[in-house]
Amino acid sequence: MFKKTILSVSALLLSASLSSGVLAQANERDVAAEEANRELVVTFYERFFNAHETEEAAEVIAEDYIQHNPDVPDGKEPFVSYFTGFYADNPESQARIVRSAADGDLVWLHVHSTNGEDDAGEAVVDIFRVEDGMIVEHWDVIQAVPAPFANNNTMF
Amino acid sequence: MFKKTILSVSALLLSASLSSGVLAQANERDVAAEEANRELVVTFYERFFNAHETEEAAEVIAEDYIQHNPDVPDGKEPFVSYFTGFYADNPESQARIVRSAADGDLVWLHVHSTNGEDDAGEAVVDIFRVEDGMIVEHWDVIQAVPAPFANNNTMF
Repeated sequence: MFKKTILSVSALLLSASLSSGVLAQANERDVAAEEANRELVVTFYERFFNAHETEEAAEVIAEDYIQHNPDVPDGKEPFVSYFTGFYADNPESQARIVRSAADGDLVWLHVHSTNGEDDAGEAVVDIFRVEDGMIVEHWDVIQAVPAPFANNNTMF
Repeated sequence: MFKKTILSVSALLLSASLSSGVLAQANERDVAAEEANRELVVTFYERFFNAHETEEAAEVIAEDYIQHNPDVPDGKEPFVSYFTGFYADNPESQARIVRSAADGDLVWLHVHSTNGEDDAGEAVVDIFRVEDGMIVEHWDVIQAVPAPFANNNTMF
């Protein structure tokens, strides 16, 4: 009886998340479009965050780029000018893409970001939304790589 | 001339990331399998992290679950027993899935995790690898939601 109640709570929660769009992509997948989005975002990312071609790479960033990183204002200009300055001071900064996902209009990147060889760095997931061949929105989650570890697997 | 050199550096970096498997999924997408993985992981997540049915939900976690969260040892048992204790002490803890991606054998979840109504909470991305209907590996990145914000968009 107790178990039944718990299970129906779970079913309720699941249907709430279903209706909020978490699974909404299911019938709308267009793999060719998703792969084009992935290629666009990965190319942008390598040029911007690894080759540090900030101005040139940002040709695919929309002027009214919606920014969810809590430290950066909306728009293309604040994003580009911040990193142009940052890379002038930190030329060794790199952001290695470990894995990616392309689903609907979103491209997700799992990244190991470091600032020089001795830096344990940060684990990052960046999420970019692509619309008509332009990157229009961005979310991220960033965590410093800690030590020690409870397992031997690294964060990547 | 300078620009040409920079661009060839970028092309080199891009081909390095291409060959390392970042885009390897391109020709191997099976949307039906990806959606089955998404449904498995979302159902597990809602039951485990929201309904707190830790023992029951974990029936889809492999015994030798590979753990990349730096604070948790490998295996199903340490993961389940940690959260069973945590939810006994924190019954209001919730983890709202904001969006998800399913690509290859991976399911990615962008989550807002809170511990009670007054908690600004944490932004989380969880990545789960699914093999033969079981969740066999997990990565995450976790960041406390800060204040103040440089934009009005929230982290989600």
